[in-house]
Amino acid sequence: MTITLTIPGIDPLSIAMLLYPGFTMLDLIGPQAVLSWAGTTHLVAKTMAPVTSDSGAQLVPTCTLADCPRDLDVLFVPGGFGTFAVMKDPEVLAFLADRGARAGSITSVCGGALILGAAGLLQGYRSTTHWALHDALAPLGAIPVKQRVVVDRNRISGGGVTAGIDFGLVLLAQLRGEETARLIQLMMEYDPAPPFAAGTPELAGPALTERARALMNSIAPAEDVAQPRA
Amino acid sequence: MTITLTIPGIDPLSIAMLLYPGFTMLDLIGPQAVLSWAGTTHLVAKTMAPVTSDSGAQLVPTCTLADCPRDLDVLFVPGGFGTFAVMKDPEVLAFLADRGARAGSITSVCGGALILGAAGLLQGYRSTTHWALHDALAPLGAIPVKQRVVVDRNRISGGGVTAGIDFGLVLLAQLRGEETARLIQLMMEYDPAPPFAAGTPELAGPALTERARALMNSIAPAEDVAQPRA
Repeated sequence: MTITLTIPGIDPLSIAMLLYPGFTMLDLIGPQAVLSWAGTTHLVAKTMAPVTSDSGAQLVPTCTLADCPRDLDVLFVPGGFGTFAVMKDPEVLAFLADRGARAGSITSVCGGALILGAAGLLQGYRSTTHWALHDALAPLGAIPVKQRVVVDRNRISGGGVTAGIDFGLVLLAQLRGEETARLIQLMMEYDPAPPFAAGTPELAGPALTERARALMNSIAPAEDVAQPRA
Repeated sequence: MTITLTIPGIDPLSIAMLLYPGFTMLDLIGPQAVLSWAGTTHLVAKTMAPVTSDSGAQLVPTCTLADCPRDLDVLFVPGGFGTFAVMKDPEVLAFLADRGARAGSITSVCGGALILGAAGLLQGYRSTTHWALHDALAPLGAIPVKQRVVVDRNRISGGGVTAGIDFGLVLLAQLRGEETARLIQLMMEYDPAPPFAAGTPELAGPALTERARALMNSIAPAEDVAQPRA
């Protein structure tokens, strides 16, 4: 059985989404669920071997860095507990700098912004990331903004993990119109109802925030972030 | 690099999540992102080959139906455009009926409820599913309820696609306490901000709803649903 999601009459987008060890699956799958209706979502990795996300689930790449289309409508990078490691990977940074030089939109969710920053792609751009990572944006040349989705010229970034759904709809509305984004929002039944008010440090309060910060730091210590690529 | 998400002091859950051709990746990854902090999420399929979701992305199973642990805290089934096909697969239905006979919680997101129903697991239980599929619940013995997440004894179901995040947090709060769910909600920065008000037929209006229904029906026609397994 082959299923192809597509909206009749839409000019299909060419989208590259980076996979790397320790990426957060939901950072990527949120926007992929939106964007796969509107084009091809290339899942790009260093090799064709399945890539293990930080929750243990493994996704299969559709192409390598070398085989990824050179001219993209959208370049996308997710975050995850593997973010700091990939920020030091010259092969990945060179790939992002190359595709980013021509991509229509240069985008991220969560810690993906730090990886774009390490590749030199956020110099002077307003950007957001996971609440626990905001301090790492300025050293990479970006201008941190605490907002769910931030649009600055062709740089579009989403906050932590679940912000990827909001980000995907904002991006698609910009590229293919609000009516298309609304149609997909309806098919995804995106009328969220969080059972608790705990999704930001402000809502969760200082004790739970400190516990979250310590737990995340014990899994992947925030290191001195790399300087952006020249 | 091996990353293991875990919350110190938590009694780990054993969770089985069904993969099948044409499942919706976000139906599964929403709750998996929550539950992987609190135990092992077994990704179960007929064989160990990668399973292609309806958005084209391929996930790698961690065990087969035969090798899946026999006693589970949570049995979970996602929906997707492949739902109607898997509802006729006797091997999958027998697996669900067997594990469902002993599982602590029997759960679904989106069209996954129809698959549970086809396996005879929703007889007399209140349940929800994707807005476009509600009419299919009653013929399978379930009592349809239009609500984001429905809890009836040990049956817990979520609505369409994105409801999986709300569902996952409700389920985890029930099994491991509200404080644990709130901690994970904060780490996932789940404070959603949908850019449009279009996530339900009521919000989207009749014209867009008709367009969505026709489009979904063109991809996977809603068939006469199978009678539940005796």
